Amino acid sequence: MSPPGVEGATRLRVRYAETDQMGVVYPANYFVWFEVGRVELLRALCHSYRELEASGINLPVIHAECDYRRPARYDDELEVRTSGRLISSVRVEFRYVLVRVTDGEVLATGRTEHVPLNREGRPSRLGPALREALQ
Amino acid sequence: MSPPGVEGATRLRVRYAETDQMGVVYPANYFVWFEVGRVELLRALCHSYRELEASGINLPVIHAECDYRRPARYDDELEVRTSGRLISSVRVEFRYVLVRVTDGEVLATGRTEHVPLNREGRPSRLGPALREALQ
Amino acid sequence: MSPPGVEGATRLRVRYAETDQMGVVYPANYFVWFEVGRVELLRALCHSYRELEASGINLPVIHAECDYRRPARYDDELEVRTSGRLISSVRVEFRYVLVRVTDGEVLATGRTEHVPLNREGRPSRLGPALREALQ
Amino acid sequence: MSPPGVEGATRLRVRYAETDQMGVVYPANYFVWFEVGRVELLRALCHSYRELEASGINLPVIHAECDYRRPARYDDELEVRTSGRLISSVRVEFRYVLVRVTDGEVLATGRTEHVPLNREGRPSRLGPALREALQ
Repeated sequence: MSPPGVEGATRLRVRYAETDQMGVVYPANYFVWFEVGRVELLRALCHSYRELEASGINLPVIHAECDYRRPARYDDELEVRTSGRLISSVRVEFRYVLVRVTDGEVLATGRTEHVPLNREGRPSRLGPALREALQ
Repeated sequence: MSPPGVEGATRLRVRYAETDQMGVVYPANYFVWFEVGRVELLRALCHSYRELEASGINLPVIHAECDYRRPARYDDELEVRTSGRLISSVRVEFRYVLVRVTDGEVLATGRTEHVPLNREGRPSRLGPALREALQ
Repeated sequence: MSPPGVEGATRLRVRYAETDQMGVVYPANYFVWFEVGRVELLRALCHSYRELEASGINLPVIHAECDYRRPARYDDELEVRTSGRLISSVRVEFRYVLVRVTDGEVLATGRTEHVPLNREGRPSRLGPALREALQ
Repeated sequence: MSPPGVEGATRLRVRYAETDQMGVVYPANYFVWFEVGRVELLRALCHSYRELEASGINLPVIHAECDYRRPARYDDELEVRTSGRLISSVRVEFRYVLVRVTDGEVLATGRTEHVPLNREGRPSRLGPALREALQ
């Protein structure tokens, strides 16, 4: 049985700006990459985040976490594998696996939770197409 | 009975660079502030992180999480309240409460776990003074 | 004869997040500090940037430059000395000197130019108080 | 007559993390993109920056500047066109043109200067292959 929700993958290359003096990527940047993965997943659903916002719905994060296994390094090519699903009518969960492309090593896993908010800043249901995709 | 470990507080002001186009602070930046709090706590223990590194011990993060309650905004003055404690001989936990100074509102809470590593990159016990402080 | 315009100084401490794997501060971050200096200067003029924006005037940058002399390092305490002046009715210039507090060494100098824009995104004169201060 | 030096182009998409509350990209991030362009240019010369560093030569920046013409926005696809050339035996200049892919609009232009430093931190000539490419 396939897991519920949708999945996608996107690639990026580690920038010098993302490293710190320990010689590896500064840990907060993993959350930036998770967002890149999330946005690309939404884009693949034909709902780029920009369009989502144009519709007046934001998806602010209410929880974020990351487990760091091995450090990402400058110039590494990485793949962010993202899956998303509704966990209630007004809560969306995304899970992330960060993989080093050259050897398939999993560098980190993460999870974020989001509440769709309308223009007035109140919890709001997603549009039907996105809701169905994330079911 | 007082809780184990040590506590400290440090203040910072939200920078324009830390906002995003939603008009609030970009979420990954909370983890940067948590680190500022952690470093100031270590500094208050007379072991600035720079000295800790000079001793050859790094404290890389293996887990980070944040619960976002209310958004921080540009120019807000914030206080990061940080507490730290050993949770095993080779694992340190820090907890963070992010408070808006003007009204005492808690904007977020967070937690990170760290493994002390020596110059060879192997788990290593902290020095006795720091270990005792975090007991 | 005193130079035209106004001057101010603000201090900050280098964050771990601001370093890169060369072991020094990532160069783009100097521009973030320049902005901190600029904002504090405006704040000292009793016109915090937040209030400036509330008045509907933004000060987007149209030019930025930095000369790097010596690297800033993690945990350094730095002072940003900022001066500002009108260079035309719709153009403001800020100059920055970045000094290491411990020994007074100048680490970098910089300059930015800004055009005040109103809510419609058109060049606009600053309010009289700010204009006079920057004369 | 073709201009001296070498040229390259690389594409990137604006991340949410790169925006600020003015609704456009935070200006310091343009310098991060310039570096992405510079690195890709060096990579295209079969001398990735990582390899360059492995050889013991760093290219720290001594001057950076940017002219901002039109704001980059979230989700824009951008092209960084980078050219590099030796301006003396121990100084390299890179120039950057930032173009919005959808309509070819130039959003910004920039320039950086770098001094090759060896492991001892002293100005040093680049290797012959890179030197010839940048002639």
